[in-house]
Amino acid sequence: MDVGIIGGSGYGGGELARLLEHHPSFKLRTVAARTHAGQTLGAVFPNLAGSPSAGLQLVPADPAELDGCAVVFLATPRDASRELAPALLGAGAVVVDFSDAFRLDAAPLAAASAGAAYGLPELYRAHLAGARLVANPGCYPTAALLALAPAARLVEPASVSVVGMSGSSGAGRGLRDDLHASHAFGNVAAYGAPTHRHTPEIAAGWGALTGGAPPVTFTPHLVPMARGLVCTATATLTGSAAAVRAAYAEAYAGEPFVTLLPAGAWPASTHVAGGNGAHVGVAVDEAAGRVVASCAIDNLVKGAAGQALQCANALLGLDETAGLSATGLYP
Amino acid sequence: MDVGIIGGSGYGGGELARLLEHHPSFKLRTVAARTHAGQTLGAVFPNLAGSPSAGLQLVPADPAELDGCAVVFLATPRDASRELAPALLGAGAVVVDFSDAFRLDAAPLAAASAGAAYGLPELYRAHLAGARLVANPGCYPTAALLALAPAARLVEPASVSVVGMSGSSGAGRGLRDDLHASHAFGNVAAYGAPTHRHTPEIAAGWGALTGGAPPVTFTPHLVPMARGLVCTATATLTGSAAAVRAAYAEAYAGEPFVTLLPAGAWPASTHVAGGNGAHVGVAVDEAAGRVVASCAIDNLVKGAAGQALQCANALLGLDETAGLSATGLYP
Amino acid sequence: MDVGIIGGSGYGGGELARLLEHHPSFKLRTVAARTHAGQTLGAVFPNLAGSPSAGLQLVPADPAELDGCAVVFLATPRDASRELAPALLGAGAVVVDFSDAFRLDAAPLAAASAGAAYGLPELYRAHLAGARLVANPGCYPTAALLALAPAARLVEPASVSVVGMSGSSGAGRGLRDDLHASHAFGNVAAYGAPTHRHTPEIAAGWGALTGGAPPVTFTPHLVPMARGLVCTATATLTGSAAAVRAAYAEAYAGEPFVTLLPAGAWPASTHVAGGNGAHVGVAVDEAAGRVVASCAIDNLVKGAAGQALQCANALLGLDETAGLSATGLYP
Amino acid sequence: MDVGIIGGSGYGGGELARLLEHHPSFKLRTVAARTHAGQTLGAVFPNLAGSPSAGLQLVPADPAELDGCAVVFLATPRDASRELAPALLGAGAVVVDFSDAFRLDAAPLAAASAGAAYGLPELYRAHLAGARLVANPGCYPTAALLALAPAARLVEPASVSVVGMSGSSGAGRGLRDDLHASHAFGNVAAYGAPTHRHTPEIAAGWGALTGGAPPVTFTPHLVPMARGLVCTATATLTGSAAAVRAAYAEAYAGEPFVTLLPAGAWPASTHVAGGNGAHVGVAVDEAAGRVVASCAIDNLVKGAAGQALQCANALLGLDETAGLSATGLYP
Repeated sequence: MDVGIIGGSGYGGGELARLLEHHPSFKLRTVAARTHAGQTLGAVFPNLAGSPSAGLQLVPADPAELDGCAVVFLATPRDASRELAPALLGAGAVVVDFSDAFRLDAAPLAAASAGAAYGLPELYRAHLAGARLVANPGCYPTAALLALAPAARLVEPASVSVVGMSGSSGAGRGLRDDLHASHAFGNVAAYGAPTHRHTPEIAAGWGALTGGAPPVTFTPHLVPMARGLVCTATATLTGSAAAVRAAYAEAYAGEPFVTLLPAGAWPASTHVAGGNGAHVGVAVDEAAGRVVASCAIDNLVKGAAGQALQCANALLGLDETAGLSATGLYP
Repeated sequence: MDVGIIGGSGYGGGELARLLEHHPSFKLRTVAARTHAGQTLGAVFPNLAGSPSAGLQLVPADPAELDGCAVVFLATPRDASRELAPALLGAGAVVVDFSDAFRLDAAPLAAASAGAAYGLPELYRAHLAGARLVANPGCYPTAALLALAPAARLVEPASVSVVGMSGSSGAGRGLRDDLHASHAFGNVAAYGAPTHRHTPEIAAGWGALTGGAPPVTFTPHLVPMARGLVCTATATLTGSAAAVRAAYAEAYAGEPFVTLLPAGAWPASTHVAGGNGAHVGVAVDEAAGRVVASCAIDNLVKGAAGQALQCANALLGLDETAGLSATGLYP
Repeated sequence: MDVGIIGGSGYGGGELARLLEHHPSFKLRTVAARTHAGQTLGAVFPNLAGSPSAGLQLVPADPAELDGCAVVFLATPRDASRELAPALLGAGAVVVDFSDAFRLDAAPLAAASAGAAYGLPELYRAHLAGARLVANPGCYPTAALLALAPAARLVEPASVSVVGMSGSSGAGRGLRDDLHASHAFGNVAAYGAPTHRHTPEIAAGWGALTGGAPPVTFTPHLVPMARGLVCTATATLTGSAAAVRAAYAEAYAGEPFVTLLPAGAWPASTHVAGGNGAHVGVAVDEAAGRVVASCAIDNLVKGAAGQALQCANALLGLDETAGLSATGLYP
Repeated sequence: MDVGIIGGSGYGGGELARLLEHHPSFKLRTVAARTHAGQTLGAVFPNLAGSPSAGLQLVPADPAELDGCAVVFLATPRDASRELAPALLGAGAVVVDFSDAFRLDAAPLAAASAGAAYGLPELYRAHLAGARLVANPGCYPTAALLALAPAARLVEPASVSVVGMSGSSGAGRGLRDDLHASHAFGNVAAYGAPTHRHTPEIAAGWGALTGGAPPVTFTPHLVPMARGLVCTATATLTGSAAAVRAAYAEAYAGEPFVTLLPAGAWPASTHVAGGNGAHVGVAVDEAAGRVVASCAIDNLVKGAAGQALQCANALLGLDETAGLSATGLYP
């Protein structure tokens, strides 16, 4: 079936075009973008040279261009997503939105659903059933919540501190002083804390798992690489230390995209680069009475385009793994 | 059909396991290795977690373990390849060898064929027909020859100087002082020149194209990244400047894995990472009367495991592109 | 006056040799090492080519070789330091030890001083007076304690969680799989948690500041760069939010090597590379009631050789800044 | 004596401010810039926090602001340099210009001197005597000419091919798509060839050494790091192979900033980072009859600010090494 992307000139849209090359049922028919319209996708993303979609000519970001697409992926900013989604839904498409336009209103995160499902299948799969609009989670919330979720009943909800470490591609393709290569090589630095735009999303997701509205402290850092993201969380243990590993093992047994690492091992972003996998490690700091959990993902795959595809698969009744692989490009 | 890898604990073998996950006809049945036997492939390559081959247990590097495999890939050192290949061929397998054990004897590089075909399909495709043993080219020779080949009749054969720039994965998984992360980050340096082990291979390939035995000066450099390789070559123009671009365009028209970039553009390794593509750029330095040509590949894909798969496809009568994509992981 | 280094073939020793080139009073007379004895320092560290110490020939790690040195720096492993220090002190030298041999026994960290001062001048300067043996702090404890110290009276002591992010040089010059360039490029991963060898040192230093023995959770990560380290800490605020910034400003006013960044700015490792400076940023997460503080240093300078020199200056009655600069190499 | 910088907000100017901190005779009195006027130098370059010049307030780029400075460094674009230099010279200052405004007219590169000396002391030292205006060489020409110069009488002048590999800081602080961190991490690519703006400068310098106007083919590449540059050159040997090493040894004996590496070793940019040193390696490719020579420098030090300081020292009658060190920051 035909699918389309609006916002196809950014990293998220380009990554989705890459992934769709291998999808057994979806065919990328239309790529729209506010800028670059008229250029081919291969000109905007030279890495796609030779792929079937390289010759697609970008069209203007007009919903009418997407008519007939079974799924439309919105890799657009918040405001554009809010504007575009109703028309696309009205035209019968399933919509998966990469922005945070609908995340905080999306079930299961709010009592009153706005008709959008929050698309983190491993944690909230039931809510995807029957949805037509998916709010694709942020990259940090995906990793933070996958790290924390199995501990929801074993820790003090209000005790969570999360540190994020992301490659630069999470910040998008726009030019900024702190994304200048000369600044970014050899540099690690916090940014945006303590009020990063992903903080309320992490807190809302954590609240949905713990039943309240606990605050979360979130401190993101930029690290010197293009792809990959690790969130490491600590929380005060209230349950039994012995129960922790079992809870993680149970939570992720059978999940095709989540791997719980053996005790003593910690997830490495290099092992998940390019794939839709999430690696999770957990330990108990017995001296301090805390759980330490860490999750590595590729911010553009499980943290964006891959997860979007996983959700689209679910909404269209396909196998969630269709066209996706957990395998990373290593080294 | 079943295939096997001997030398499955190194980067080349691991990369092949990753690529085989998407192959429509080949099924990775056996992975053998001198070290790590008894461990699962997923333990040796955590990036494969979740892939069908992650649970494969490595077996000893004994040809008998590969009985019944239609193709055996040897990701072994030269001496091991020389020792293993005859038995495997005797057992009826097609053999693709990653080492330089057979390269210099392989047709079309020598008058007297040793029964091995040199596996660079874009340049020597005809020689693959009917072969049972493929000498998979080195990563530098692949890029150098793809950069130079279309100019074979337009330049002075003995005037070629090639500079290589490779990520560290080309040097393998073994530990060395110059591959220590602290040394390699932020470092670019020549090494091995002027007698790198790939120099005779480049010269032999170039001789096969030009009809003589011209020397080639080759100066490889290590650059601070894990994957990707660029070879930039200069040669004295003897033909018409106007003929150069046409020769390149003609040479690579219809090649699914080679993209000739538009005039003024130069190949970037980041655009081919993870894919089997080769990007080629060419220009004429009119002031100096030289052709400048540059080729970027992923050293582990088009420079190793991807090309091996491309050759195996050809030998087994499959479409050369089966299970392969030129698309790179960007950024 | 003459000074010497034992352990001069590792990164810490090499960095000290680099810094000593600019010292107005110390002259590097002797470099000893267990390995490499007989080689010149310039052969072991080609970056020193052209410096006065490049021609020094490494001697065996025998205390007698250091006779007459006013200061001996021990860039040796713990056991070697314990063995070497008494003889050197007996010979009249001031000793600055880079290992953790004496850190946990060093005043002000323990009630009973073992005669060693813990050498973090900004926090425990008074204890350096009259000392002959300095336990030079670990790189992570230096950054963690500089980040946390001004908040000691404003937060719940037992609520501290610290995440560390370090370049690979902190792990030393030895070869290891996780320090292989191909693994380390493009990789971020936790390691060693929750029982890293620096955790008790951070906890002891924090206890000295808060008056108890509070546990600290510490989760170090390796990030893809050679130099530089950031520690980001969170702690539950008990005092007034308004008092936080003032406490930091007061604590570091007049400190030549510590810069408190303006509100909203976070320290970047690239700004302190190569210098003895520490950049500190702090904010209050009002929603969660926590202090978030972050400190960036060069792990080999303020986290090792520079701080050792700063301490030696203090012990010898020189200006603490002699031969040192806070200025970083940027970009 | 007082010195000033115009163009103090770019990398070259900032690097000079860093180096001047250690100069025994020059005192940075004035920093001027077209943008950022009114801000402190420490705000524009946070790495200078704690240095004496951090508090300097940037003034407008007006020559009158520099009155009384014995030396004015112009880290300005070509046109601004051409406009500013006459007034500064008229006011009695020595001027060192970082741009290419005066390079091609500078002795010894042109028969008719324009009153500017080309400031590469190791090759053209005599011309600095009595000069009041120095054209500071480009980073690539510095490395290319240091690599090639000793071979000037031993190779065919017209046979030279140079490949450059530079970190991103050589491209300046301006924002560009190809300098976006996400593009630059893990990427190596040629650019600008075969008509890079440094090509005529390399050719002119090479001509001055060989006595003609030989063309040079120059192919620069961007490599994934912030600092450091390697030029590797090949040229057809006409003299005796045995004479090559001796010529290099003789040329650089006694040069405080140039180190000829032992046979078999090649220069590594990581060994010269942050210092004014140049490392040179040379070998003869006997099979091809070519000289291969490679030179590594820090593009912002020996390739810009350090060399400028070296020239200013010479013009002011100071020791050429005053305030400079060849020592690199390693790792």
